[in-house]
Amino acid sequence: MARGTDAAPDAARQTPLHGGDLGAARAAFPHAPEPWLDLSTGINPWSYPLPPLSADAWTRLPGQDAEAALLASAGDCYRAPSPGVMAAAPGSQALIQILPRLRPPGRVAVLGPTYAEHARCWTLAGHEVVMVDGIGTDDGPGDADVVVVVNPNNPDGRTLAPSRLLALADSLAARGGWLVVDEAFADMRPEDSLASVAGRPGLVVLRSFGKFFGLAGLRLGIALAPRAVAAALREAVGPWAVSGPGLTIAAAALADRSWILAMRSRLSQAAADLDRLLEAAGLRVVGGTDLFRLVEDPRAPMIFRQLGAAGILVRRFEHRPDWLRFGLPGEDGEWQRLRVALRWERGGPHQAPALPDS
Amino acid sequence: MARGTDAAPDAARQTPLHGGDLGAARAAFPHAPEPWLDLSTGINPWSYPLPPLSADAWTRLPGQDAEAALLASAGDCYRAPSPGVMAAAPGSQALIQILPRLRPPGRVAVLGPTYAEHARCWTLAGHEVVMVDGIGTDDGPGDADVVVVVNPNNPDGRTLAPSRLLALADSLAARGGWLVVDEAFADMRPEDSLASVAGRPGLVVLRSFGKFFGLAGLRLGIALAPRAVAAALREAVGPWAVSGPGLTIAAAALADRSWILAMRSRLSQAAADLDRLLEAAGLRVVGGTDLFRLVEDPRAPMIFRQLGAAGILVRRFEHRPDWLRFGLPGEDGEWQRLRVALRWERGGPHQAPALPDS
Repeated sequence: MARGTDAAPDAARQTPLHGGDLGAARAAFPHAPEPWLDLSTGINPWSYPLPPLSADAWTRLPGQDAEAALLASAGDCYRAPSPGVMAAAPGSQALIQILPRLRPPGRVAVLGPTYAEHARCWTLAGHEVVMVDGIGTDDGPGDADVVVVVNPNNPDGRTLAPSRLLALADSLAARGGWLVVDEAFADMRPEDSLASVAGRPGLVVLRSFGKFFGLAGLRLGIALAPRAVAAALREAVGPWAVSGPGLTIAAAALADRSWILAMRSRLSQAAADLDRLLEAAGLRVVGGTDLFRLVEDPRAPMIFRQLGAAGILVRRFEHRPDWLRFGLPGEDGEWQRLRVALRWERGGPHQAPALPDS
Repeated sequence: MARGTDAAPDAARQTPLHGGDLGAARAAFPHAPEPWLDLSTGINPWSYPLPPLSADAWTRLPGQDAEAALLASAGDCYRAPSPGVMAAAPGSQALIQILPRLRPPGRVAVLGPTYAEHARCWTLAGHEVVMVDGIGTDDGPGDADVVVVVNPNNPDGRTLAPSRLLALADSLAARGGWLVVDEAFADMRPEDSLASVAGRPGLVVLRSFGKFFGLAGLRLGIALAPRAVAAALREAVGPWAVSGPGLTIAAAALADRSWILAMRSRLSQAAADLDRLLEAAGLRVVGGTDLFRLVEDPRAPMIFRQLGAAGILVRRFEHRPDWLRFGLPGEDGEWQRLRVALRWERGGPHQAPALPDS
């Protein structure tokens, strides 16, 4: 395992910078035109059409039958071996919060840079967290008890092969450790998912509902793990954690195979379109998934401000000021708005002078 | 404090019997007429009318502004001194799951019999839990570090005066302890709520959104606690825990003072009507709140079965087989159906022979 690249604990105790906070964007750019175009998240702009909701979904406590239906649907979609390896929670973030409390404090390696909540939550639960920049083929997981990998990774889209991850999981399992694979962006590449081998010792897979289905406000995440871990997660989450409407909608969406297949194709096309748009503006795309693209450019802080002044919010990164992450625009007008903002004649990003240190 | 009445740990490790599980009811009474009339919960049958939901509520991650709006609305409704004493979670059950993990293992007294999840969750987190049947005026909280009181209590409606609870909270706070007051059914009697003094050392108040507003599927609970405890709860719950639609609907409902006042009056009337109906059937009402009534009768197991055969589910209690809890019927037809089921000519409850041991 590569050496740690970051002193994680201090950074981890801070509240991470998240995408999607339009309130903060409005405060920072009070003169920006409304409505804002929020490209700061990796949420599908073409959300799953809401099925009709019965009044019961809102008024009654979600029944065990509703949760069973959701898990059956998710199990089919993710090719999970059985419902017993699954645990549902109100968002994969809730699972990220709980997982570190299921183990005694130990050593945790997070393959970074990545979604900051992993390091934060393991640190808060008393574990010693180190950020690593690679997992060597020969040197295994080092002395870590737990390794956390986001696959494909956010924000750079780096993908590790299933075979390599399985070898790592086995190596960790042999000493009672875990490999946590956050597959928040795996819906577009199901062939890379480890959900189908869930239940294997040492392997904990996290899936997010809201990103691919474009329903992030619904709050649903699913863990797939060895039976004892899944049971401990279900117990820690407690009964009725996911809303009744959430269970109903997600059960329908996860079972809608034709929508899923068509959406994978649509997102793949959109990601290619976004790359062309960004490259036409002189920006270099260095990675991403079909739900977001990562640009590396020394002028990134200025581009962020230029876009903000135009009412377009993209994602920046505290420790990588040369990175910007672009989510997918949705309607044609949004694509056009981004294209225009990146082609500004005066002070636009690709006419702007280089930053002093670039 | 009165002596323990129950060996809590063994009982607490079992999954409690909850109301609202129509799946189990259908399995137990396969010939019952559909639709079932579910009176096994304490959920208002006249639910708050859903306001229009923006697409954003479903598609976007809930923003900090949405949670702030919910807390402002809840703070007004509950007369909380400031937002800093509040933490929102996907259901008060989620708070009940988390609270025990915020303290090192200690001694916990639960005033029972009451909602079983308190004892279960404190036990699972490693605390020594004892069920007590009273809190003496002179003997204080005994040697407990934490005392849990449901006020008004579920299922018997027993209510402890605010002054007495405050004295108990102060006594516990003096040695670093907590009084946890679960006010899940306090919306009908705001004058008994301690939410307005939240922030006081040692006092943790839990409020439920779904019962009074009849939207239990929405999943929202709010804790009001000393600032440090509220902050620890917010941190343990994590970001975006409550769904976007849930935040929108609850913010509107909690601010709708005229609906709230009219509903208190309607529920009070309905509870009185239900008492009359039950007493006309020869049943003795021994307690409850305006959302449910508790009947004590040695024939309770038989009455449960008779009602089940008629497609009416009421709440029974493992450790009190002589108790049945009745929620409020909603539409006129539901009242009539209950009335008829309790007046059955053949084998109906009040014509039935007494149980052997009664």
